[in-house]
Amino acid sequence: MRWAEGFIAVDWGTTNRRAYLIGGDGSRGEEFEDSKGALSVPPDAFPSAVAEIRDRLGNKPMLAAGMIGSNRGWIEAPYVQAPAGLDDIARALVWGDEDTAIVPGVFDDDRADVMRGEEVQLLGAAAAGMIPSDCLVCHPGTHNKWVEIAGGRITTFRTVMTGELFNLLKEHSILADLLAPPVEPGAAFDAGVRRGLRADDLSAELFSVRARVLLGKAAGEDAASYTSGLLIGGDVRIGLGSVAPATEVVVMGRPELTRLYAAALAGVGREAVELDGERCFVAGIQQIAERIE
Amino acid sequence: MRWAEGFIAVDWGTTNRRAYLIGGDGSRGEEFEDSKGALSVPPDAFPSAVAEIRDRLGNKPMLAAGMIGSNRGWIEAPYVQAPAGLDDIARALVWGDEDTAIVPGVFDDDRADVMRGEEVQLLGAAAAGMIPSDCLVCHPGTHNKWVEIAGGRITTFRTVMTGELFNLLKEHSILADLLAPPVEPGAAFDAGVRRGLRADDLSAELFSVRARVLLGKAAGEDAASYTSGLLIGGDVRIGLGSVAPATEVVVMGRPELTRLYAAALAGVGREAVELDGERCFVAGIQQIAERIE
Repeated sequence: MRWAEGFIAVDWGTTNRRAYLIGGDGSRGEEFEDSKGALSVPPDAFPSAVAEIRDRLGNKPMLAAGMIGSNRGWIEAPYVQAPAGLDDIARALVWGDEDTAIVPGVFDDDRADVMRGEEVQLLGAAAAGMIPSDCLVCHPGTHNKWVEIAGGRITTFRTVMTGELFNLLKEHSILADLLAPPVEPGAAFDAGVRRGLRADDLSAELFSVRARVLLGKAAGEDAASYTSGLLIGGDVRIGLGSVAPATEVVVMGRPELTRLYAAALAGVGREAVELDGERCFVAGIQQIAERIE
Repeated sequence: MRWAEGFIAVDWGTTNRRAYLIGGDGSRGEEFEDSKGALSVPPDAFPSAVAEIRDRLGNKPMLAAGMIGSNRGWIEAPYVQAPAGLDDIARALVWGDEDTAIVPGVFDDDRADVMRGEEVQLLGAAAAGMIPSDCLVCHPGTHNKWVEIAGGRITTFRTVMTGELFNLLKEHSILADLLAPPVEPGAAFDAGVRRGLRADDLSAELFSVRARVLLGKAAGEDAASYTSGLLIGGDVRIGLGSVAPATEVVVMGRPELTRLYAAALAGVGREAVELDGERCFVAGIQQIAERIE
């Protein structure tokens, strides 16, 4: 098959996958999303899960990124060491079959940290000029990443488990009832952010969310937004950590999350540009495909 | 019924209850534990759940503490404001029926914090001379409490959600596999404690537990003890917070938890006495019963 005549790009995450048909001229054609994330596919069922995508989008070469390349995916694509750019990623592709390549993740040896999937968005946005070639990118999700970009390459990064912690608390904790309502930016969220920015006692502040409601000192309907702000405020405190004040900050990912992080960053005087992660993914996966052959 | 001829004491928690027959001379007789915690009993089924205890231990007056007095229990026994001692607690008993009293919890208005159940152990231990009348008590459990005792009364306290966070991570998070082994004091636990004592970035350090194992920088079999140490180290940092260095520290509760907190406290040069919470409960509930009538 010939990559120059177009290909299928797949963002294959833990719980979902999204596949795009990319034309030979770089145009974005048909696409779909389903819940066949890497964890729901048995190890020996990846060839058929891949064939199913070709049945829907056409018999094209395929480039897949994300958890499909993890030790719980199809074939492990070992992490590339940061600093890493598109050339490093393209050189380390792993082939599931002769027409299907898997993108490796990136690791930061100094900080002992890893990413898998975000690198396509980050490097794609840098190559396409959607972000400055030197900046700090905040990439919220289940595991938020703070990524320093220099010269268009990923230099160092740190992961904060904010999304997963919020979901655990919402689904299984003593705060579950209080955290059921949707999180909205606003006064309660901002109050949580302020507390999170200065607190070094998250595990105590979480309990006080409930105690304040029990004692009539806070409204139950504010608890979800406040708690999200508390976690995101602490996340921003960690992420801005040692970064120079003049560094430009970009927030990249799903719009419902980037707006919350942008609001928290605004609270510390950082005007952050928001970017839709899906656009960045398509830009990045094309950059990698162009480097094949 | 006459309290002076003995009574039944019940430590009625969220998921379990433990009932003790206490003789008129203060002796501890038959007792049992089962899984009929307050959350598993429908609101209108408490009279029969109480009758069932009398069927087993005898037709005696009953004094119950813990979540049975919460808004998810039988009858809500409103929190007594700290500073609070045994007399305050005894005056605020709420009666489920004419022979069954429920112990109220305690709230700290300044810190917006609440406890329900621990107050019996704390005040019982103080009255029985098991702890100094002025000290700091660490009471680990699902929600660890750091409680300042002055003149034998509860003056102020703060709750840290350590136990619940560890359980959420162990049962439902991306760290679940790593956290399955038993937690043991030792080198990995101590390393976690040291990190937790100085860290103000728990939500990032939790992710790095996994990343370090993926990168071969830490052994997977150490992750459970390290993570427990990380959480408990942060907990100790919060708990010792503003307390004077000369304050005596006592750790009270279930022995498998008190030994971990005692080990963490030893790491910062605090020799903490460990006390079995059950003995303290029996001492406290007798003190309250003596104040009835």
